[in-house]
Amino acid sequence: MREGFQDDLGRLHGRLAAMSEGAAEAMRGATRALLAADLRLAEQVIGADSELDDLRSSCEEEAYSLLALQSPVAGDLRMVLAVVYCAEKIERMGDLAAHVASMARRTHPDRVVPAELEPVFRELGEATSHMADRVAELVRTGAKGGHAELSHEDETVDALHARVLATITAEGWEHDQRTAVGLTLVTRFYERFADQTVSVAKRLDFAATGDLPA
Amino acid sequence: MREGFQDDLGRLHGRLAAMSEGAAEAMRGATRALLAADLRLAEQVIGADSELDDLRSSCEEEAYSLLALQSPVAGDLRMVLAVVYCAEKIERMGDLAAHVASMARRTHPDRVVPAELEPVFRELGEATSHMADRVAELVRTGAKGGHAELSHEDETVDALHARVLATITAEGWEHDQRTAVGLTLVTRFYERFADQTVSVAKRLDFAATGDLPA
Repeated sequence: MREGFQDDLGRLHGRLAAMSEGAAEAMRGATRALLAADLRLAEQVIGADSELDDLRSSCEEEAYSLLALQSPVAGDLRMVLAVVYCAEKIERMGDLAAHVASMARRTHPDRVVPAELEPVFRELGEATSHMADRVAELVRTGAKGGHAELSHEDETVDALHARVLATITAEGWEHDQRTAVGLTLVTRFYERFADQTVSVAKRLDFAATGDLPA
Repeated sequence: MREGFQDDLGRLHGRLAAMSEGAAEAMRGATRALLAADLRLAEQVIGADSELDDLRSSCEEEAYSLLALQSPVAGDLRMVLAVVYCAEKIERMGDLAAHVASMARRTHPDRVVPAELEPVFRELGEATSHMADRVAELVRTGAKGGHAELSHEDETVDALHARVLATITAEGWEHDQRTAVGLTLVTRFYERFADQTVSVAKRLDFAATGDLPA
């Protein structure tokens, strides 16, 4: 039974890693769609989000049946519950990537991001997608210390987020309120996406060690 | 053991209901602080958020020990896992109320909300606090159908949110970008708070029936 448990847990981890890779891919696509005002790509990202939702449901169902059938305790129990917790956060990451794509779709054929802010959004897209890819690696390898690592990367994202807000609230910024509102929302989607990766990494560390990092 | 389980679950539900009442109270306080530019009240709301965080931790720990000691299955298992899920959402509601209060603190002594939008924010505060109070009642009574009810209330909040965005992006709106950015963020905190109450109600219905509402 213990061997069966490890197999089942390994399968769950595989699904969870695939979810995080899906979220990374979604954020990469959403960022390209946002910067190129690419309507087709935006719609593709929005459409693909239901796959993450389905993966999350099946993760959760499998975790429940594992709990019901095997009644794991201590570290094994923490591991299974971590999968449920993380699957929810990663689904939310997918939602946030879809929100970025929705903003591109709603604004099309206009661009959400004025030329002077394009480099910042390119960096936001790269940083957040990389964080989601790292989460997938942490899940696959079972490596510890992911929370510290991703918290560090999150500081970069927070700084980029702050830079966008500072730019659009500076004296003499030349675009209209609609642009300011769109940028405020879209930059927050990136910031929240990064926050979710930190929560996932924190929970993975907790599952591995039993100590919730502060 | 089954009786012990029901007692333990009842205690968990009591904590969860108290958390949701705490989130309702926090949102009421945050809204008053926002509209009156009341720095002391804002700081009180921000300071009180750690109580919700602590309640959530203890909910989760108790749920884990219940799972480990009693290995509940089927409906009982769903109930315990719902508590873990809901506690996380309600903690997030508390965070969002604290974010509203933080906005009041950051902008003090200026006001975040211009006079013409005060009634809308008063309504947002009342609607969202009421939703959190309803969640507490649903938890305490075990009543079903909360998801449909709260989804309906959520439409009101979405409409208020849309009204704020429409107002600040209308031609001839007379305030600066900083005000537009602040309002975009703060109205989204209310909208997200309401979304969390819907997620909680949905999960409570699922725990009670075994069917996840669409």
